[in-house]
Amino acid sequence: MEKRNHAAADAEAEAAESIDLFEYLILRIKEVGVQSIHGVPGDFNLTALDYISKCGLRWIGNCNELNAGYAADGYARVNGISALMTIMGVGELSALNALAGSYAEYIPVIHIVCMPSRRAQADRLCLHHTFGDGDFGVFQKLSAAVSCMTAVLDCPHRAAGLIDEAVRTCWVRRRPVCLFVPADMIRGSVFSGGRLERGLDLRGPGNDAEVQRRVVETIMGELRRARSPVVLVGGYAVRHHLQDEVLGLVKALAVPVLVSASGRGIVDESHPLYSGLYVGNCSEPQVLGLMQSTDLVVSIGNIQSDLGTAGFSGQVSSNDMVDLQMNRICVRGELYPNINVKPLLQTLIARVESSYLSPRCSWDTEVSVVSSSRHPKTSQHCWFKRLLKPEPIQHDWLWPMMGSWLRDDDVILAEAGTASFGIWKTQFRAGTIFIAQYLWASIGFTVGACQGASLAVQDSVNSHRRTILFVGDGSLQVACQELSTILRYGLAPIIFVICNNGYTIERLIHGPENEYNDIQPWKYRRLPAVFGAQSAQYRSHQVHTKRQLQRLLNRKSFSDCSRLQV
Amino acid sequence: MEKRNHAAADAEAEAAESIDLFEYLILRIKEVGVQSIHGVPGDFNLTALDYISKCGLRWIGNCNELNAGYAADGYARVNGISALMTIMGVGELSALNALAGSYAEYIPVIHIVCMPSRRAQADRLCLHHTFGDGDFGVFQKLSAAVSCMTAVLDCPHRAAGLIDEAVRTCWVRRRPVCLFVPADMIRGSVFSGGRLERGLDLRGPGNDAEVQRRVVETIMGELRRARSPVVLVGGYAVRHHLQDEVLGLVKALAVPVLVSASGRGIVDESHPLYSGLYVGNCSEPQVLGLMQSTDLVVSIGNIQSDLGTAGFSGQVSSNDMVDLQMNRICVRGELYPNINVKPLLQTLIARVESSYLSPRCSWDTEVSVVSSSRHPKTSQHCWFKRLLKPEPIQHDWLWPMMGSWLRDDDVILAEAGTASFGIWKTQFRAGTIFIAQYLWASIGFTVGACQGASLAVQDSVNSHRRTILFVGDGSLQVACQELSTILRYGLAPIIFVICNNGYTIERLIHGPENEYNDIQPWKYRRLPAVFGAQSAQYRSHQVHTKRQLQRLLNRKSFSDCSRLQV
Repeated sequence: MEKRNHAAADAEAEAAESIDLFEYLILRIKEVGVQSIHGVPGDFNLTALDYISKCGLRWIGNCNELNAGYAADGYARVNGISALMTIMGVGELSALNALAGSYAEYIPVIHIVCMPSRRAQADRLCLHHTFGDGDFGVFQKLSAAVSCMTAVLDCPHRAAGLIDEAVRTCWVRRRPVCLFVPADMIRGSVFSGGRLERGLDLRGPGNDAEVQRRVVETIMGELRRARSPVVLVGGYAVRHHLQDEVLGLVKALAVPVLVSASGRGIVDESHPLYSGLYVGNCSEPQVLGLMQSTDLVVSIGNIQSDLGTAGFSGQVSSNDMVDLQMNRICVRGELYPNINVKPLLQTLIARVESSYLSPRCSWDTEVSVVSSSRHPKTSQHCWFKRLLKPEPIQHDWLWPMMGSWLRDDDVILAEAGTASFGIWKTQFRAGTIFIAQYLWASIGFTVGACQGASLAVQDSVNSHRRTILFVGDGSLQVACQELSTILRYGLAPIIFVICNNGYTIERLIHGPENEYNDIQPWKYRRLPAVFGAQSAQYRSHQVHTKRQLQRLLNRKSFSDCSRLQV
Repeated sequence: MEKRNHAAADAEAEAAESIDLFEYLILRIKEVGVQSIHGVPGDFNLTALDYISKCGLRWIGNCNELNAGYAADGYARVNGISALMTIMGVGELSALNALAGSYAEYIPVIHIVCMPSRRAQADRLCLHHTFGDGDFGVFQKLSAAVSCMTAVLDCPHRAAGLIDEAVRTCWVRRRPVCLFVPADMIRGSVFSGGRLERGLDLRGPGNDAEVQRRVVETIMGELRRARSPVVLVGGYAVRHHLQDEVLGLVKALAVPVLVSASGRGIVDESHPLYSGLYVGNCSEPQVLGLMQSTDLVVSIGNIQSDLGTAGFSGQVSSNDMVDLQMNRICVRGELYPNINVKPLLQTLIARVESSYLSPRCSWDTEVSVVSSSRHPKTSQHCWFKRLLKPEPIQHDWLWPMMGSWLRDDDVILAEAGTASFGIWKTQFRAGTIFIAQYLWASIGFTVGACQGASLAVQDSVNSHRRTILFVGDGSLQVACQELSTILRYGLAPIIFVICNNGYTIERLIHGPENEYNDIQPWKYRRLPAVFGAQSAQYRSHQVHTKRQLQRLLNRKSFSDCSRLQV
């Protein structure tokens, strides 16, 4: 009797702590700050979509899954994390390139793939969206290659724990995770065990105190010995949220700070210590001079990729570097693995502040020289220079000029190619979020990402921010239909379409006159109307000359963002 | 001295038999009948593109890689085989869903992925389009999952042999193969060893004579015992080019022949023995009657998938079936593996023709009944029926009516969903090529495939054929930019856009009123103009009523295909 009562009480407790799987999942996604979920509806995920609005989130239906993946990436770069929903096979594989980009560039996207029911899988049914061979696991292996964790939520008792682990892993490791949900589990009860009340633990891993002390002292020794150190900030510092640590270290050391192409946004480019963009031999002369005369580069979250260094030009040797990556440190070539950089940096800053090191006045003069000549007139010797050939609107005029039009807190996207290289000449204002793929470099990415980024702005407390996209015509054609999604959800980015009649970067590499670098000439201005825009919903403009462009930029109605502008 | 002369002669012979790798590859692709190669240009494949026109082939630049993959699939379904070019990582992964569809549905596509040079790979450089970790092999594993063979062409001595093996494997196994070409190998000399002169051996594998004899006799025994056999033709019979064998067997047996949803095209639907479309319980009553009364189904290249059987309704038991798959035979549940169906069928036909079996007169009356009522007025009890609700243009009126507008040799594409189910009510004319994905069912597929199919028609001796696409508005939005490619290359398909304001099939499954099944309303008629069409290059029409549609179809200027019509 006693026993039976216990069992009944257990069952009751379990029922009280039960919740529909998808509701649990959405509540966890909401908890980490996602307000809108991107994706494409499909047969296996339809019942799941009902939970999104039920939990107070918004469903954003993109035109296709690749673009939805790009949008989720853009949303995460502004919002910190995002979620994407597809269906097994067709949808999941269509999004794979977008997720590979998120994986390469450390963008946390929670990818939810709905799949056929557990019964259909167990019976190995010949279902659509499969190879017809009863194998439902083949696609998981593909998604696993672009995820830092995957899990199949097919067990009511394990589901809640796996969801927690996945969301936490995505947040901490800053890379996509992929959750597979059989259709019959969407509404299935899972045992939550009071987890929701406790909340997720999102703290990153700490370090062994003794190991960390030793590494900090090694770095301190290098800093003491260095005559003219500089700090170099890379893209992973942005994406791993090291803003406070980077600014803290720069302030404590008071040394010049350079940023890489993808590292822009953390350090205000009008900050006295900000000393320019380091992009290999394409850097400005004073930046090159700084890099040539330094005897120690403290590199935070930077990788020296070909696109970020103008083809590996002027790479910094590991012997001249304290290289701080997310979970490993390398001091002048000596590797310290399994060290987490965030707590290490916090300790290092405290150590610098309490030591004789701070501030390094020796740099003051030179720094002020650097910061007063941030708009140079000379261009560098690199293949990129070939972009700057005379045209009605010339690139070497356009990009420096755009800087004066930008505002604090703009969200700026530059498509890989003409725009991502051109924008090296544009000065950003404080609080800028900069979105570009200098590693994955997938053409069309920024069109989808622009939708996601402007939505994340709309979802945020800073909803007044502008979202500005610079994209070439060839890239716009890849993912053009997301203009439709932008219109559908009332988003208002400003989109500059740079019409150079084809694949310009490809022309510079090979085949300048070849037909394969041509594209079909579109009427870009009329795209919004075809995609169903009401006339009040958008404005489109076409400029051929410098004067026309400047007049447009000076117009208040253009520069303030109440509707889509192309 | 003697030795040295030999070595010199060898070197000379090798030089004489040397050829640039990419030229060799393109010549082999040309040899199997490909005249146009689809793809998107990218940094690693630009020098490769030069070889295409040099060898007399045509480069077709699509707007993105997924659509290029769809187009290559469509081209192969008309032409027999096709080729696709992308670059490693971004391009390759974007195309993956299209290639998975080709893999699932047995479409031979030669996928060529250009990648960084061997040196860059050996040095594990941090290049764009990678994860930045020096691993260039990670993507090959993903492409391998959707290919029946992959090879990296990094050795001058092995390259020609690998190319031959890949092209042959693609042709014989009717599934994608993937060739990876390092950038420095594109122009590299490979040793051809006189292979080009000898030509490729494209014959499929034969069977062991004794095993084949035994299987044929087993089947003959079943045919002798059967009172009322029928032949059922599936999609793989079309894609493995079993047309002659299927028609030969049907003629020899003189029994009713049914086709599956994807098996249409081989048997002329006005042939006296043609007895209708078998789509499970969605079949017409006389087809169901035939299937209920038969005691033996000779099934050729058919799989009983959910979409092809209206959700596994009326599946044929393996005990009632001689199931002829491409390389295995199953007679009433008894499996004979590793038998190739083509030579087996040829032997079987000869055996039937020389035996008492032929012709089976007992069926004559019933067959004539079936063929005289091929346009039934009653509709079936299945969920598909819900599509046929009253609308200005009703589906149950539209689809049977369209049959009278079709012509011999039309190439017809039906997008998965409304169109692919609706078209079950449309009678096809002789020589039709029918393109639809009843297994992979990727939304947007037919838009790209339409470009590829109409190009294959243009490349063929039957260039007068019409290419006709039926697609819903939601699906068109997925891949809309390929209208631009259609215009760019002067193709002239007739495209029917069925505007039902969203994802109709999804609405029928779940959420009929839910916003997530809505799409942004576009101005479809204006799409060609925005995509750069001159007014003489296209016509667009909008019809709301039956009368309007019939008037349009009766217009000669509409039905004859000299330009794109939407």
